[in-house]
Amino acid sequence: MSLDLSTLVQKNDKRIVFLIADGIGSIQSGPNSLTELQQARTPNLDQLAAEGECGLLDPVMPGITPGSGPGHLGLFGYEPTEFIIGRGLLSALGVGFPLKDGDLAARLNFATLDKQGNVVDRRAGRIPTEENERIIAKLPKAIDGAKIVLQTEAEHRAVLVLRGKGLSQSLADTDPQATGVPPLDPKGLDAKTGTKKTVAIVKKLLSQIRKILADEPKANFVLARGFALHTELPSMAERYGLTAGAIANYPMYRGVASLVGMTLLETGNNLLENIAVAGKRWQEYDFFFIHFKYTDKTGEDGDYEAKVKRIEELDAAIPALRALKPDVVVVTGDHSTPSKLKAHSWHPVPALLWAPATIRRDGVTEFNEVACAAGGMGRLPMKYLMQMALAHADKLMKFGA
Amino acid sequence: MSLDLSTLVQKNDKRIVFLIADGIGSIQSGPNSLTELQQARTPNLDQLAAEGECGLLDPVMPGITPGSGPGHLGLFGYEPTEFIIGRGLLSALGVGFPLKDGDLAARLNFATLDKQGNVVDRRAGRIPTEENERIIAKLPKAIDGAKIVLQTEAEHRAVLVLRGKGLSQSLADTDPQATGVPPLDPKGLDAKTGTKKTVAIVKKLLSQIRKILADEPKANFVLARGFALHTELPSMAERYGLTAGAIANYPMYRGVASLVGMTLLETGNNLLENIAVAGKRWQEYDFFFIHFKYTDKTGEDGDYEAKVKRIEELDAAIPALRALKPDVVVVTGDHSTPSKLKAHSWHPVPALLWAPATIRRDGVTEFNEVACAAGGMGRLPMKYLMQMALAHADKLMKFGA
Repeated sequence: MSLDLSTLVQKNDKRIVFLIADGIGSIQSGPNSLTELQQARTPNLDQLAAEGECGLLDPVMPGITPGSGPGHLGLFGYEPTEFIIGRGLLSALGVGFPLKDGDLAARLNFATLDKQGNVVDRRAGRIPTEENERIIAKLPKAIDGAKIVLQTEAEHRAVLVLRGKGLSQSLADTDPQATGVPPLDPKGLDAKTGTKKTVAIVKKLLSQIRKILADEPKANFVLARGFALHTELPSMAERYGLTAGAIANYPMYRGVASLVGMTLLETGNNLLENIAVAGKRWQEYDFFFIHFKYTDKTGEDGDYEAKVKRIEELDAAIPALRALKPDVVVVTGDHSTPSKLKAHSWHPVPALLWAPATIRRDGVTEFNEVACAAGGMGRLPMKYLMQMALAHADKLMKFGA
Repeated sequence: MSLDLSTLVQKNDKRIVFLIADGIGSIQSGPNSLTELQQARTPNLDQLAAEGECGLLDPVMPGITPGSGPGHLGLFGYEPTEFIIGRGLLSALGVGFPLKDGDLAARLNFATLDKQGNVVDRRAGRIPTEENERIIAKLPKAIDGAKIVLQTEAEHRAVLVLRGKGLSQSLADTDPQATGVPPLDPKGLDAKTGTKKTVAIVKKLLSQIRKILADEPKANFVLARGFALHTELPSMAERYGLTAGAIANYPMYRGVASLVGMTLLETGNNLLENIAVAGKRWQEYDFFFIHFKYTDKTGEDGDYEAKVKRIEELDAAIPALRALKPDVVVVTGDHSTPSKLKAHSWHPVPALLWAPATIRRDGVTEFNEVACAAGGMGRLPMKYLMQMALAHADKLMKFGA
């Protein structure tokens, strides 16, 4: 995109709400061979669809299954193949770690080595989370002037963050992805000074960890994966002139929202309470990201009925959202999670855009994947959703004379 | 676009007509909450739609409202974010100025300064056009070897064109966009030689204008905006092998057509007469651009009923167009201009492509925004329209073996 959207931005007090039902898209399954959206009773979403415009969105591109990072970046209008959130960073966001520009993050697995130093269990017998926390407390806090933060994720999983000057992400994994062989030595992927320095720090750290954990029965070493350096992203304020608030319960989504400069708002115990938070903070923000996790979770669990129920919970919250009198409402997901597949998928995501002042109504009167395929939005890359929402909120000026 | 279309071009005597109803797209409004296209009685357009293929086109990209320049470049198959027509150039085209490679154009407003030299009226009391013409005649014709052309637009508006060697467009506006402050001095936006030279010329010009207009009661100075350098575009002949003729009444559209190398043909007093011109010149050209302004004008006026009538006028001209036996007909617009919004908008533009020998008919039997959303063309960037038309005219060879 060679067009710099920020040159077209104009501010006003119109409000945009992105209600994101994680993993909402699906494929047909269940007793009636319908998608969960087709099966669910959704009178309020259907009304929004009838009054609005619908379509199908590709978070990354057709055929590509997105992780949560790329999916949300697409939603927020960032080209997901340009702005990459590495695995280590996503794990750091997932434990709520407040990343700073230049931080280096990696995923750690606690593992069991035998006396010869070969890996016998890459997951250290899936130690309980409390044991993970107990062990983490014993590990180093700094090496060679770099701050070391180790944080428990769950069971055998943890996150490593290095904070220091001139760190590099050009490091290979130390996880050999096999048993019966030793962990790999930290190794730089290029010959740059920063890479040499980072390799040296990681080597010292691993050598200290090996000594400290020598007497542990299970978790006597760590394997590192997905070294990734955090580079600050341009914020939604810079790109779109928006003052954006995020209402999300799960750390990873709070993390991605904070990466694009949203303010993390308080959260309630369910979607209705989260919509009430938006109402309470209505005067302070002109963009709200409200995240609903459970359409994804039930999809990942392969629980068709539960996903249908969660969609009906989403539907029941729509009147409360409309009562706030937003100017633009978007309802969609960051990707599809068909309960039949128990995983994220590449299927394009049904989307509805509601904006009573400026919408061109299409013929769609139900919110589901099949109905959306015939909508006026057509099938688009997800990154365009944000600029369409901005246009309907009158926040973009004309391009060219 | 990494594919060089010109390598695929083959010539033949098939004829393509682009009938462009400016600003034709819209959103629902009016007594029946329909778009103007839905409301209008359009049996001939509906027949073309039924025999052809329909879709929705984004002139620039989703959510972006195009000016007339980018909209028409999209129609002619030029990526509008790559080929930029600056504001000054569009104004020059609008007064019919024949731009040459290297010309520098800017918009001028006559303005009123007080005795301290502060702007009191940025529009000089909207002087009559005749007064603008009288004043323009007094102003310099050349400075430091650069030719100066000043041309009246209307009321307080005029166009400045500098023709000389090595001019630069890196100049800030001198219009302060406020009253009670002095006009801004000409200022370069970079330190290049061409910029310094251009700034010097503009400074001298403005200083002379200030002296010459000192005794004018209202228009005693000028404010300049949108300095833009004309760089020749690759022509439609080079890109597509087409011999293209433009039939457009308004200078701006004649200007954009001439930028892409079309020959400007004579015009009649209405659409039927313009189609008759195409008939008269039928043997000389294999591409005709016929521009119909009034769907945009009535939209900008917010006059729903008038836009409906203009669409019916467009419809009534279709039999005359068909009588010419064209091989490919495209009917669409350069952007949407909903009369509800009284302005250009970002809504994608309904398009129909008619080509009896090669079309794949879709299920669309009416030409309007909602019906087109379900068409076989889908939703596409507008720049692809030209190459689809070329394909249906058998003017493109196979890509790759």
